[in-house]
Formats: sequence, structure tokens, C-alpha cells
Amino acid sequence: MRREIAEQAEGVAATLEKVRRQAERLQSAMSGRRHILFVARGSSDNAAIYGRYLVETHLGIQASLAAPSVATHYRARLDLSDALVVSVSQSGRTEEIVEVQRWAASLGAATVAVSNDADSPLAAEADVPLTTQAGSERAVPATKSYTAQLAALAGLAATLGDGEDLWPLLDRVPTEVTRLESAEDGVAGAVDVLAASEDVLVTGRGLVFGTALEIGLKLEETCLQPVRGLSYADLRHGPIAVVGPGLTAVVVAAPDGPMLEPIIELAGDLTQRGARVLAVGGEARLAAAAAYHVPGPDLPEAVAPIGLIVPAQLVVESLARRLGLDPDAPRGLSKVTTTDPR
Amino acid sequence: MRREIAEQAEGVAATLEKVRRQAERLQSAMSGRRHILFVARGSSDNAAIYGRYLVETHLGIQASLAAPSVATHYRARLDLSDALVVSVSQSGRTEEIVEVQRWAASLGAATVAVSNDADSPLAAEADVPLTTQAGSERAVPATKSYTAQLAALAGLAATLGDGEDLWPLLDRVPTEVTRLESAEDGVAGAVDVLAASEDVLVTGRGLVFGTALEIGLKLEETCLQPVRGLSYADLRHGPIAVVGPGLTAVVVAAPDGPMLEPIIELAGDLTQRGARVLAVGGEARLAAAAAYHVPGPDLPEAVAPIGLIVPAQLVVESLARRLGLDPDAPRGLSKVTTTDPR
Repeated sequence: MRREIAEQAEGVAATLEKVRRQAERLQSAMSGRRHILFVARGSSDNAAIYGRYLVETHLGIQASLAAPSVATHYRARLDLSDALVVSVSQSGRTEEIVEVQRWAASLGAATVAVSNDADSPLAAEADVPLTTQAGSERAVPATKSYTAQLAALAGLAATLGDGEDLWPLLDRVPTEVTRLESAEDGVAGAVDVLAASEDVLVTGRGLVFGTALEIGLKLEETCLQPVRGLSYADLRHGPIAVVGPGLTAVVVAAPDGPMLEPIIELAGDLTQRGARVLAVGGEARLAAAAAYHVPGPDLPEAVAPIGLIVPAQLVVESLARRLGLDPDAPRGLSKVTTTDPR
Repeated sequence: MRREIAEQAEGVAATLEKVRRQAERLQSAMSGRRHILFVARGSSDNAAIYGRYLVETHLGIQASLAAPSVATHYRARLDLSDALVVSVSQSGRTEEIVEVQRWAASLGAATVAVSNDADSPLAAEADVPLTTQAGSERAVPATKSYTAQLAALAGLAATLGDGEDLWPLLDRVPTEVTRLESAEDGVAGAVDVLAASEDVLVTGRGLVFGTALEIGLKLEETCLQPVRGLSYADLRHGPIAVVGPGLTAVVVAAPDGPMLEPIIELAGDLTQRGARVLAVGGEARLAAAAAYHVPGPDLPEAVAPIGLIVPAQLVVESLARRLGLDPDAPRGLSKVTTTDPR
């Protein structure tokens, strides 16, 4: 896992290059369609959440995440003739996702498969296979395949967009990822506080919400800690009532954008309620509002998630070792995931 | 809260009647549109998840839940001219939801407002106000307003559907809700196990997934217990690795449908991993696979959620009293919710 964390800038850059070369096919697949539907599970689902927010906020195209069971168990016959369906799966071999893509195609959708294996069934059957260039990932927890997925989805949005040009922002990403791969700032402090925490909550909002969920999932899977991942809004809307001393709240933010002010305020509120606040990303004011801080990328919110996960991966990897666990092969997980036992 | 739990059959029946009378207006609002987009937070969001699954599985119309911040913070200009937007808010006064409905209307959507107050801004500004008939709800935790929302959404689906007729199924609901309002089976046992649990997870899938999340939210808000709500699939896909002794898993199911078998199997797996399994709903085989069981409604899956929450409400109310808490006014919650502090 540690080595693969350090290979991400390369995978991101190569994936962006790959997407650029498929611009025409992607534009043609989207042509005449009005909706984008993402299909994914686990870390890929967290990547898809970023894709969904980016598509809606920067392309003005209505997007959503499919409920796979509507296809696999209820076998509903939706009209998807105005949809582009984007399936995301590292292996491209998760049966559930392959089945949903087949179902979507049979209902009129155009299909794009974001996978890390050009020979996988998901890629082979898609109208446009968008193969991430992460290289072979051997550790079970997804790291470089996840950031390559984010890059692929951002590249897709940049390709389909006719508004703000995302490409110049994306060009800045690999350098920032390289810098963060070896950044040590705040990592040891974060490991200390998480190692001593029994109750951990991770929160974020908007474009970085998927990053918050991914940090929660990684902590849970790799460090075997139960973690709750909640959107800022869902937390504010009720469960904040149970926040008190004993809780460690991981608060995730980009260094700019409309979510920064509310998140700084939330960090202050959580601190006031007695929680230990660990901020990931943001900027100086968020750091000041939190007891612990792991700096994130110097990238605008639209592309920040691609770098923002990197320091959190370093924290998770180091925390697993501190807890005497093997970060490369967590208990009970396998590399090709299945939703339903066979 | 106890009294309002017992007023639900009446609210459900009156709400269904109200929806029937608005069939023409609802059909006209949907006419020529191809998508349904739900807008909600908190308990209303859990109701909307049911609405989303019901619309997709029984109407064959693609549906999704809006990300409110796309409207309120990013101010994205989506094309919603082919969408019916269904906003759900008990008070009809949650500013965020009112703002999103306004945004959707300005982008071409037809709007339906499911609220419990015909004079609220949400109802007043909607193309079709669909007022739930729960009567005034005084306890802070939503009970009768929540089941009335479910009834309104199921009635909406029945009205817009041209496939399987949902109305005959809905006609059976009030009698089952009446029966469940005073059912005691399994409630004391569930309260015992939850009162002794430090780590609680709630899971469900498909049409009852929203019910699982609502049970988790109620436990968290009313009993001040941190609870994780996870879909069956997300649990299977990774976090099941951290399931072991010490965990109480609440497993929620309808008595039939394509999710029943997988959920029975999951209950067995969780038991094998050492968790205490509390089943809510399902049937005899699910009860047999679980250490504790609270029976649910004898209703087909499509409409089961309207009754399934009732025994869980009884558990939550009784658990709060056991823990020395006031179920009517939990700490830190208010009746008209706000997402962003003002």
C-alpha cells in the first residue's frame, strides 16, 4: 500500500492523457443524451459521488447514482434512452456492476466503463472503455486505482463540458499529487489521535463528500475501526445531537469553494461540543478551528479531491501499522469484490 | 411520541384518500416528463428513498435524490425540463428544501410538495401541494408525519403508474398499521438488547433500505446512541470485515420480495461472526436466523415500509424511557430543522 500510494501521480497523469485521446468517442456517446447515471460500489462509489457533483456543478447535466438492486433484483425496465451510464469498477470484474451495465445497455443507455483492466468484461462490453492507467494494484485497499478513477471522471467532465474549462486545472494535479505523496505534515499527529479514538465520524460536503466517505471506508476496512461517514447536512440535521467528548470528528475540505465557510463553522461547533476535530485539507482558518490538521492539496475545489485523499491514505497506512495490522491485506477483504455471496 | 405512534393508521388512510383526490393534477404535472427527482433531509429523506425505489421498480421511471447543495451552494443551472421534482418536508418550512424547490421550478421542473402543512411556503409554491393528513405532530421525532409521507409517496406512485395496480395493496395498509400500533411482540426483547449495546449497525436493502436508515436515525436522535446505517450491499462490500462480538446488527426486511433470501443469509453470516442480530419484519425464516425478532406487517414489499417502521418506533420510544431520556424532546433537536446555521 505504501509503495502504491507513491505511484499515484504517474497513474493520474497517464489516465488524464488517456481520456484526452478518447474525447471524440466520449462526446459522441453523450450526444443527444441529457442525464448521466453512475454505477459503482465501495471505493468506486466514493469516486462516483465526486463524478456526480462535478457533472452537475460544472456541466449543468443532471446526474445521479444508480441503485444496482433495481437492475439486479427488481429487474425494473427503466427508459434509459436519454442516459449515459458510467460504470466504475477497479477490476472491471465485479459481477453486479457488469450485470447493471448490461441491463442499462439493453434499456437504451450509452455506456462508459471506468476500469483498470482493458481486458475486463466491463471494459470489453462498454461503448467506450475508459481504462485507468494505475498499473497493477496489489494491496487490497484501493489507492492508486481510486485516484486514477477520480482523474478519469474529472477528465470525462472536462471532455463533455462546454462551460468552465477544467483541463487547465487538471494539468496542475499530478505535480500536487507528487508533492503530497511524500508530505509528512500532520500525519503523525493524526495517527496518534485516531489510534486513541473509539468513536470516529468523518464528514464533508459537496465535491469533497465522496472523499470524506472514502476516508471513512479506508479507516474502517484497513484499520478495522467502525466509522460513521455522514454528509455535513445530515450531521447538522440531527445526529450532531450525539456529538460530545470521546468523539473524534474528521472534517474534510477543499482549500476554497462555497463549502469552506460552513465547514470551518462546523469544525468550531464540533470542538465546542467536546469532540476532537481532525481537519484534512482546507486552509489556515480550518486548521486553526481544528485540534489536528493534515494539509491537503493547493488545488481548486473542482479538482481538489484527486489530491485530497493522498495525505489521508498516508494516515491510514501508518495507523494500520501502529495498530499492528497489515495494511496490504486487511482481514475479510478480497480484491475483486462481490455484493451477493454465490 | 407514544400517542402519535398510535395515530398513524388514521393519518395514513386520510393521506391516501387525499392523494386519490389529486390524481388528475398529479398526472398532469408528470405529463411529458421522464424523471422524478426527490428533495428532502433527515426522516423525510428516508421516506424519499422509499419513493425512489418504488418509482423505479413499479413505474419504470428513472428516479433519484437531489443533492441540495448543488442548488443552494453551487447554484448549478441544470436542465430540469423533463423532471418532476417531489420535495418532502414535514413542516414545509425547512429553508433549504424551499430554496431547492424554487430553484427546480426556475429550471423547468414541475413541482410536488409533500408537507404536513397546507399553508407552508413549500406547499404554497408547489404546482401540486400534496398535504399529508397526519394532524399536528408535537413530539420532535417524526412518527405519524413520516408514515403519512410514505403513504403520500406510495399514493403518488399508484397514481402515476400504468403497470401493476398499487391501490389494492395500499387499501390493506391502514388495518395493518392499526394492528401494529398496539403489537407488543418482541419489543421488550429488542429494548433489552439495544439498551445493552454500545455498537449498533442497521441494515436493509431495496424498498426497505429507507426504513433501515430511519430506524438508525431514530435510535441515534432519540436514544443518543451512535448508529451506523449501511445498505446490505455496502456492508457486504467491505465493512462486514469489522463485524464481530460486541456488535448488535438490526436487520430490516419485508415479508416477501427479491431481497428476503439475501437478507436471511446475511442474518446468518452476521450471527456466525459473533454479532447479536435483531430482525425487524421479514417472516419465520428471518426470525429463525436472528437472536431477536420484532415482527412487521403482513403486507407485500411494495407497501410494507408504511407498516414496518411502526414496531421499530415502539422499540425506540420504549428504549428512550429505559435509558432515562425524554422521547418527546431529544437533546439538541428542533422540530423545524435547518441545515445551515443562521
